[in-house]
Amino acid sequence: MKILFTLDDLSEQEIHHILQEAETFKKGKTYDKLVGKKAANLFFEPSTRTHYSFVAAQQKFGMQVTNFNVEKSSIKKGESLYDTVKTFEMLGFDCLVIRHPQTNYFLELDNVSIPILSGGDGTGSHPTQSLLDLMTIKEEFKQFKGLKIAFIGDIMHSRVAHTNIKVMKRLGLECYVVDPFGLGAVEEKSIDIEEAIKEMDILMFLRIQFERHGYDLSVNPQTYHKEYGMTKERVQAMKDHAIIMHPAPYNRGVELSDYAVECEKSRIMKQMENGVYIRMAVLKEVFNHEPN
Amino acid sequence: MKILFTLDDLSEQEIHHILQEAETFKKGKTYDKLVGKKAANLFFEPSTRTHYSFVAAQQKFGMQVTNFNVEKSSIKKGESLYDTVKTFEMLGFDCLVIRHPQTNYFLELDNVSIPILSGGDGTGSHPTQSLLDLMTIKEEFKQFKGLKIAFIGDIMHSRVAHTNIKVMKRLGLECYVVDPFGLGAVEEKSIDIEEAIKEMDILMFLRIQFERHGYDLSVNPQTYHKEYGMTKERVQAMKDHAIIMHPAPYNRGVELSDYAVECEKSRIMKQMENGVYIRMAVLKEVFNHEPN
Amino acid sequence: MKILFTLDDLSEQEIHHILQEAETFKKGKTYDKLVGKKAANLFFEPSTRTHYSFVAAQQKFGMQVTNFNVEKSSIKKGESLYDTVKTFEMLGFDCLVIRHPQTNYFLELDNVSIPILSGGDGTGSHPTQSLLDLMTIKEEFKQFKGLKIAFIGDIMHSRVAHTNIKVMKRLGLECYVVDPFGLGAVEEKSIDIEEAIKEMDILMFLRIQFERHGYDLSVNPQTYHKEYGMTKERVQAMKDHAIIMHPAPYNRGVELSDYAVECEKSRIMKQMENGVYIRMAVLKEVFNHEPN
Repeated sequence: MKILFTLDDLSEQEIHHILQEAETFKKGKTYDKLVGKKAANLFFEPSTRTHYSFVAAQQKFGMQVTNFNVEKSSIKKGESLYDTVKTFEMLGFDCLVIRHPQTNYFLELDNVSIPILSGGDGTGSHPTQSLLDLMTIKEEFKQFKGLKIAFIGDIMHSRVAHTNIKVMKRLGLECYVVDPFGLGAVEEKSIDIEEAIKEMDILMFLRIQFERHGYDLSVNPQTYHKEYGMTKERVQAMKDHAIIMHPAPYNRGVELSDYAVECEKSRIMKQMENGVYIRMAVLKEVFNHEPN
Repeated sequence: MKILFTLDDLSEQEIHHILQEAETFKKGKTYDKLVGKKAANLFFEPSTRTHYSFVAAQQKFGMQVTNFNVEKSSIKKGESLYDTVKTFEMLGFDCLVIRHPQTNYFLELDNVSIPILSGGDGTGSHPTQSLLDLMTIKEEFKQFKGLKIAFIGDIMHSRVAHTNIKVMKRLGLECYVVDPFGLGAVEEKSIDIEEAIKEMDILMFLRIQFERHGYDLSVNPQTYHKEYGMTKERVQAMKDHAIIMHPAPYNRGVELSDYAVECEKSRIMKQMENGVYIRMAVLKEVFNHEPN
Repeated sequence: MKILFTLDDLSEQEIHHILQEAETFKKGKTYDKLVGKKAANLFFEPSTRTHYSFVAAQQKFGMQVTNFNVEKSSIKKGESLYDTVKTFEMLGFDCLVIRHPQTNYFLELDNVSIPILSGGDGTGSHPTQSLLDLMTIKEEFKQFKGLKIAFIGDIMHSRVAHTNIKVMKRLGLECYVVDPFGLGAVEEKSIDIEEAIKEMDILMFLRIQFERHGYDLSVNPQTYHKEYGMTKERVQAMKDHAIIMHPAPYNRGVELSDYAVECEKSRIMKQMENGVYIRMAVLKEVFNHEPN
């Protein structure tokens, strides 16, 4: 692959290959073919994990890292995304990572010939997040088929949920949603929160994206936590082998209690850790298929 | 040279030398004397091409790159440019690149002893932009004498136009202006747009700097495009060997049609590409003349 | 040490050891055990000297440097400092430098296991600033015992004054304050400005932190300068061997006249220069005591 915009770009085989590559990087494999290559990270939306795990991955490969400062760029003079990206290509950068608020932003980047990895497009996709979630699940359960996962929370605004449900169904997981706002418009099996707690292998909580909710939705954090949040009681009601995930950042005391974040069943820290290895794997891939 | 604030600092011979150096870098010459040197880029005004082509040039040389974050610096506590620059000198940085909104900002930096390269001063100069323009013209026409170039657009606000006209006359080009606003106050031969299209070897369009225009000037983009913009018809009316240039960013549909930006006669992408080699050449130069 | 939050974390012996290390780095000693280590600098408050001297120190060691962009991070989605810091730990960063407006911000970072160096906490401490001040004093006077130092200015808001007075008393200096606002609440001997000028070995001026003063304090810069500022006359009234210091940034024409900043008695430029060597020394230290 030369680009990674959505996981639809990848075959099932390619997904498994990336997961395996990430595992070998986690075991300590080194790779020196990208030493000195110039990566530029263009984040038009806030990010901590995605942005800095790409940075960490690039640094582990010995790449030269440039973080584009949107606020001090020609974007402020009205320059378009395409013209900005084309500029980085002409300046000789070897690959780009882009996060942009516009869903499907990449549709306008056809005419760019350097590798691009998406760090998220609006409410569309977040492919590397899904890959690190898959890696974390595989580490835990060794395989995917038949595992039951529930996505709990702000489904509508979650590109993580959209991307995960799509790829996880391809890989044989059974996907359920707990959608407190009834806005999800996903055609997955809806399930009750208490049922989810008792029946699922994986509980993936989603952040309430307060910044994307309009005036028409007032969420009371305490009420939400009581009704849909991961309280200590709910943690204790989970299956023995079941795990808690969250793409982060999380609203403590809303989706997750402090107890849930770092309890024994939480894999949230491991998700962050695995994010670096997944980003190493996809960086390697986009260059492998790129002759220059 | 130890500084590059304006092209007045350079003799004709030095300019030719820099162009030649840039060409050898473009052909793949490597240079390892700057490996590990610490460059800091202080951009007080938005920039994509100038900023990141300096970054790319520094990275190609294996320099250590620091991008100063004005918004999170002591500038916010009222620290002056001089005191900021002096700080970077005392911290052991080896060279600085500065873009600042104040015309002739460098006049207050006399007492600084590390190399400084200007990335643009207010409505004053933009020396490395002119050098990359000259490189692009030389690539095309092999020499400068007798070439006819017209600058079309927002002359008054354009440090690119000011710098280019001055140096190009020294090098023997014939310079013309098409000044829709009649504000340019440049003493060049004024010329009609249609005449320029038919007669010139080089058409250099300038961005309308909407952010610098006050209330007293209302520009209608559609009207402007029709009257002064590079439409497809105008591209087709150019001389066979003539070329289109623009320092970018451009307002698509205003100065340039989409067609004009990436048409066969456009050298805009090449200008960006050459920018990296020019910045390599000037970086090499300021260190060559610096004993430490 | 694995962390450096305040100088209370260090024994007198450790302080002397750090100063010696810094001196050897200033003499040109190299150190290659940190090559490739990943440092992240998280500055939640403006900084020029502290931030970029840490960057310079990290670069001198060949570390990989990442500057966290608070404004474009998940902090904007409400993520806490602890969760941000924990993320950088999970992403495999090897050490962090943090400046944060909350006094004692580090009290919530107990559960983090990578080295952290404070670049200042609210109105609390600024340990590396004190160390570089001590280094500058030691260079001048060879020892500390019995030296008389006066802190002149905005004592209340100055974490530099708080930190310095505490550690300097431990090391045997005699500390005095000239507190124009009478708000300092430090239990040091108060002294008159003219007496300070005549009697002290070291005059350390402090910046009026206009941004921290509320409406209840209106400072007239000219009046302040006349009454408490370092005029040329006051410089000339100092003891022969006495020196002027300031943590910077300084308000020229308020605490310091232009003359005072770069006069023969000023060690302000040397303070900046020494800052890099102190940061090298503390970086080395936190890794020495860290098994990974």
